[in-house]
Amino acid sequence: MPYSEINQNVCRYVNFSQDELAIFNDLLKPKTLAKKHFLLRAGEVCNFEGFVVSGCLRKYYIDENGQEVIIQFAVENSWISDIASFSNQSPSGLFIETLENCELLVLSHQNKEELLLKVPSFERFYRILVERNIAVLQNRIHYSISKTAMEKYLDFLANYPSLPQRVAQHYIASYLGMSAEFLSKVRTKLSKKD
Amino acid sequence: MPYSEINQNVCRYVNFSQDELAIFNDLLKPKTLAKKHFLLRAGEVCNFEGFVVSGCLRKYYIDENGQEVIIQFAVENSWISDIASFSNQSPSGLFIETLENCELLVLSHQNKEELLLKVPSFERFYRILVERNIAVLQNRIHYSISKTAMEKYLDFLANYPSLPQRVAQHYIASYLGMSAEFLSKVRTKLSKKD
Repeated sequence: MPYSEINQNVCRYVNFSQDELAIFNDLLKPKTLAKKHFLLRAGEVCNFEGFVVSGCLRKYYIDENGQEVIIQFAVENSWISDIASFSNQSPSGLFIETLENCELLVLSHQNKEELLLKVPSFERFYRILVERNIAVLQNRIHYSISKTAMEKYLDFLANYPSLPQRVAQHYIASYLGMSAEFLSKVRTKLSKKD
Repeated sequence: MPYSEINQNVCRYVNFSQDELAIFNDLLKPKTLAKKHFLLRAGEVCNFEGFVVSGCLRKYYIDENGQEVIIQFAVENSWISDIASFSNQSPSGLFIETLENCELLVLSHQNKEELLLKVPSFERFYRILVERNIAVLQNRIHYSISKTAMEKYLDFLANYPSLPQRVAQHYIASYLGMSAEFLSKVRTKLSKKD
């Protein structure tokens, strides 16, 4: 399993030395998962922070009408976890499922504690990572409500350019909070613009 | 302005020395604000993290129907900011307003950077604070939708026991995502139970 991507990822925010990265890499566990595998189900405690080396996953909850609502897609070079459940070690309300065969590098709760003891500057990396996460979450709640369906889809394409070719359209519709039929109309409109 | 509460607050997560706390306290700016004062308006960059020494504030956004939606109340011994706007130094979509006369201790973006340079273990404090914040935010989105109005109100009372005596009922209704009339019915039902 190559560590170059994950090391590049953490060095975006903090300049870690080769020794520090070696300690980090030793604490990671490679995980290869087939498509349609659940890493987390509602009710379980999330015991991992996963870095996606290859593949694609979705994180979702089931709303009061029994509908799946996708809150995040994770593709190559991004992180996936339920931070709330992971940090409090409390039961999650979320599901995390692979949508493709996936290679992950996974940090357990215990190994993260060990990492933070051995390399305290990872506190800074995680503080910044979680702040960005809050920004994304808040954007999704507060700003997206005032955008049109077309704007939401264009935003989505900017963030996840490869996903329309990789995942079923109804997943994208669930992420965008619209019906698959409506998303289809948006895409038709967009293709006529091109 | 007394620093004992804020120092106790940050020491819940990390054991800071007296010297480290002195550096921290020097970087804080006391702020006294009258009731109904805006600390942040949508469109502005949030340049503070505020610790509430006394008083009460609300953080809200205006939804697509022009309705105010309260996402947080802050009372004594709690923090208020728009972390997303503060950390990226990007325009906020939120409003922060005092509901009572308030005394705050405020950390500017520049002073926070200085604090993190001088006392790197504050990275750990902020990492944990932001993780708790995500947990609260996520709970509000994902779990509250499946609760009844009564459960939501009891949850609210557990988190903010003093607020029903301190703020107008319509603010509480806005926080709980129900009409003031409906909240009134819930409270009547509850008072009959007692």
